[in-house]
Amino acid sequence: MAVKSTHLVSVKHRISAGERARSNKHRGGVLWFTGLPGSGKSTLAVETEHKLFNNGRQAYVLDGDNVRQGLSSDLGFSHDDRTENIRRIGEVAALFADAGFIVITAFISPYLKDREIARQAAGAIFHEIYIDSDIETCERRDPKGHYKLARAGKIPEFTGVSAPYEAPESPEFSVDTQNLSVEECVDELVQYIDLKLVG
Amino acid sequence: MAVKSTHLVSVKHRISAGERARSNKHRGGVLWFTGLPGSGKSTLAVETEHKLFNNGRQAYVLDGDNVRQGLSSDLGFSHDDRTENIRRIGEVAALFADAGFIVITAFISPYLKDREIARQAAGAIFHEIYIDSDIETCERRDPKGHYKLARAGKIPEFTGVSAPYEAPESPEFSVDTQNLSVEECVDELVQYIDLKLVG
Repeated sequence: MAVKSTHLVSVKHRISAGERARSNKHRGGVLWFTGLPGSGKSTLAVETEHKLFNNGRQAYVLDGDNVRQGLSSDLGFSHDDRTENIRRIGEVAALFADAGFIVITAFISPYLKDREIARQAAGAIFHEIYIDSDIETCERRDPKGHYKLARAGKIPEFTGVSAPYEAPESPEFSVDTQNLSVEECVDELVQYIDLKLVG
Repeated sequence: MAVKSTHLVSVKHRISAGERARSNKHRGGVLWFTGLPGSGKSTLAVETEHKLFNNGRQAYVLDGDNVRQGLSSDLGFSHDDRTENIRRIGEVAALFADAGFIVITAFISPYLKDREIARQAAGAIFHEIYIDSDIETCERRDPKGHYKLARAGKIPEFTGVSAPYEAPESPEFSVDTQNLSVEECVDELVQYIDLKLVG
């Protein structure tokens, strides 16, 4: 018995990315959506996840709904807290991609520097996707009524109104939600993902 | 064009646990390994992941190797930092399980209260697994030489030596790594997981 238990040493032979990709028939990757409030990040993330899932992919969305009340429940919306929130999401997204998932993150993530930190966590499998719409269009949509509250001074540090949004300088991909329908945007996104992560 | 873009409202119809389970042919769940340093958590986690993967399951291990240098890189080993580390891992494990994964966490997680918080994050799909070995056996193994350093006073707050380990009171499952081989333990774990999450 004592002899047996000495066999309990760490081998640490993890499943490789290649092994997971062969099994899933696609690689893992981080699709990092960034854009103004109301640009369509969350809608497009969830709709793209659906289409990927229906195509047999392992896909998952990280967004405010499943992160802000859990992992980041200790954080607010100050600059430092936003930075820490994005850092954590970057690390979690990297874990999901390592596990073979196509993970889509849907957060404003307004600062270039924060997005760079997220990119570093995932490495080469990080894809910055600009969900592109001008602020007038976003404000007209105002799906959650937040622009209205921000203009009335009731939400402090609201991106686009009282806090900056730094648009991507050279995103891997972008979709024009100002001029395309949801369906058209999702089609473009799935095409891009298939190109990069499948086959 | 302007009309089209007004369609961009949040539908938030996520993929359900049932849909993912039908596609993966197993449910998602959190297998929370807890035990003394040297009890075999990490070895058994990685070996069990391998066997699950070879059986066609979606499985992933969260352990010090992929969490401590990333998500929890801002945390040390004080009581508060350990608690926050376990809280974050609990939340991330819950996300993985929500995404349909069988996620195995391999952390000492010495405090009952911290493990209860992790359980609450995941809900009914949380399984506390006691990796059971007495301290004499663990110390004899001492795979990383940490017990020796702790006895020499060179590692402060080392679980089992200078910090407490609170064993589970009613774990969902336990494996006796003192008297069973790695293979036997893995077989028992996979049997348990199949029983709970497959079919």
